[in-house]
Amino acid sequence: MKPNMINRLTIIGVGLIGGSLAKALRQANAVNEIIGCGLDGAQLQTAIELGVIDHFEMKISDAIKNADVVVLAVPVGAMGSIFAEMKDRLTEDMVVTDVGSTKQHVIKAAIDVFGDVPAQFVPGHPIAGTEKTGVEASFAGLFHNRRIILTPLENTSKKAIETVTAMWEITGAKVDIISQEHHDHVLAATSHLPHVLAFSLVDTLAKMNDKAKIFQFAAGGFRDFTRIASSDPKMWHDICVTNSDELLKVLQQYREGLDCLTQAIENDDSDALLEIFSRAKRARDKFTEQSI
Amino acid sequence: MKPNMINRLTIIGVGLIGGSLAKALRQANAVNEIIGCGLDGAQLQTAIELGVIDHFEMKISDAIKNADVVVLAVPVGAMGSIFAEMKDRLTEDMVVTDVGSTKQHVIKAAIDVFGDVPAQFVPGHPIAGTEKTGVEASFAGLFHNRRIILTPLENTSKKAIETVTAMWEITGAKVDIISQEHHDHVLAATSHLPHVLAFSLVDTLAKMNDKAKIFQFAAGGFRDFTRIASSDPKMWHDICVTNSDELLKVLQQYREGLDCLTQAIENDDSDALLEIFSRAKRARDKFTEQSI
Repeated sequence: MKPNMINRLTIIGVGLIGGSLAKALRQANAVNEIIGCGLDGAQLQTAIELGVIDHFEMKISDAIKNADVVVLAVPVGAMGSIFAEMKDRLTEDMVVTDVGSTKQHVIKAAIDVFGDVPAQFVPGHPIAGTEKTGVEASFAGLFHNRRIILTPLENTSKKAIETVTAMWEITGAKVDIISQEHHDHVLAATSHLPHVLAFSLVDTLAKMNDKAKIFQFAAGGFRDFTRIASSDPKMWHDICVTNSDELLKVLQQYREGLDCLTQAIENDDSDALLEIFSRAKRARDKFTEQSI
Repeated sequence: MKPNMINRLTIIGVGLIGGSLAKALRQANAVNEIIGCGLDGAQLQTAIELGVIDHFEMKISDAIKNADVVVLAVPVGAMGSIFAEMKDRLTEDMVVTDVGSTKQHVIKAAIDVFGDVPAQFVPGHPIAGTEKTGVEASFAGLFHNRRIILTPLENTSKKAIETVTAMWEITGAKVDIISQEHHDHVLAATSHLPHVLAFSLVDTLAKMNDKAKIFQFAAGGFRDFTRIASSDPKMWHDICVTNSDELLKVLQQYREGLDCLTQAIENDDSDALLEIFSRAKRARDKFTEQSI
């Protein structure tokens, strides 16, 4: 077996993320056998036909049997019930990780089921994705040059962290380790808040009387700005519910900023408007330069 | 002279929009001579070196001499002073149009200078652009498959409308005629509001203590969502100031929508969250299908 080689990989939830991970590992010859598992047999059949997985099981307990690595790639609200179904079949040398967008909730779900976070479970989150869903949208390059955040705990097995890190690095991603709290704060600001704002904008416009004309005259900027509003509603529901504390905090900060800007428009305050826009442009341009 | 051929075109403000129009018309062999005009001699010299214009004048009265078509491609706040400088040199067969993002203001600026809107002035607005600025960012394909809105008045010359329509169609754009009021309402919703939201989001994040970490973990969705926050602050200042009535109206509607969503998160109201996200996704997906 080659170094970093996974003999048997089980992916629970073979959608955009799970499917793209499978494709990337397969393309790198880093995995022998991929087992899929999920709620939708037809989707899993499609995943076989697309060559993403080798075969599938409908029951989680069957799917994880003899697996070296198990990846949970389902909406965060579903993690708890999956942990419960895995409980009796989890072996010590089985490495488990997830791709959930909120980490404190997933870790709490694990504690609820296992009493403590199992040492072989490495909470993870790839900062990658598109507004599309489903295995048909998956592609091997999704994680290339993207960041993967792992939020292991004190008792997390070093070997399990190494295995998960090596797996993600094979896909071309860069792995960072931070705390679960920091993850949820940072992602609330850079991902959860923008999604909420975009969903809300499109919904506001869709309620307008002349919405047909409005969308007709929307341009490229609008397309980019609202792309994330085409994301999966169930997934984003789960994220909002499971990271509501952090999300409400940044929403409050955002509202205060928007209040200032609205006041500047009301008061025809050119200096304030130019200051806000210039500061934002500088920050955004700097971000673009620095980001990988 | 070929049909649709412009003998002498004067572009006042040779930046992204003015430069791209010049390139597109030149590429289609639809113009004999292009005169540039602007405040920055070095930029105009660059425009000559890039082959965008043939020569330039620093004074508007010199630049528009013998022009068949004059295009005003400057921030909307500058239109009034340009009209004033054109006043004594405007001839009856000179067609004038602008590319300003707010139409009621530009039309009012024309009335302030000329007493009435000159028949040969066709107010216009290409729904196209990028977050970049300057002639270096211009490209011939910018208007391809984009919409151009013209908002002529009752007394606007039919021939002038035909000339401006033909000019834009040569660039690959589709021309629509709507009222100035409707333009300002629609654009407030689809362009001005999203820009304000994006500027405000980036500014909010830039004020956070751990902003370095925050921007470091921002992903592709964030990049798309905030691209428009890299737009020119002066241009967006002018837009906010000159379309404040419509912008404040849609900002108010947006705040009400965001209030509902925030409440749904606070109340853990899954039905409300799923409803808002699903409605937004449907509207956004439909928009993407329909848009040219």
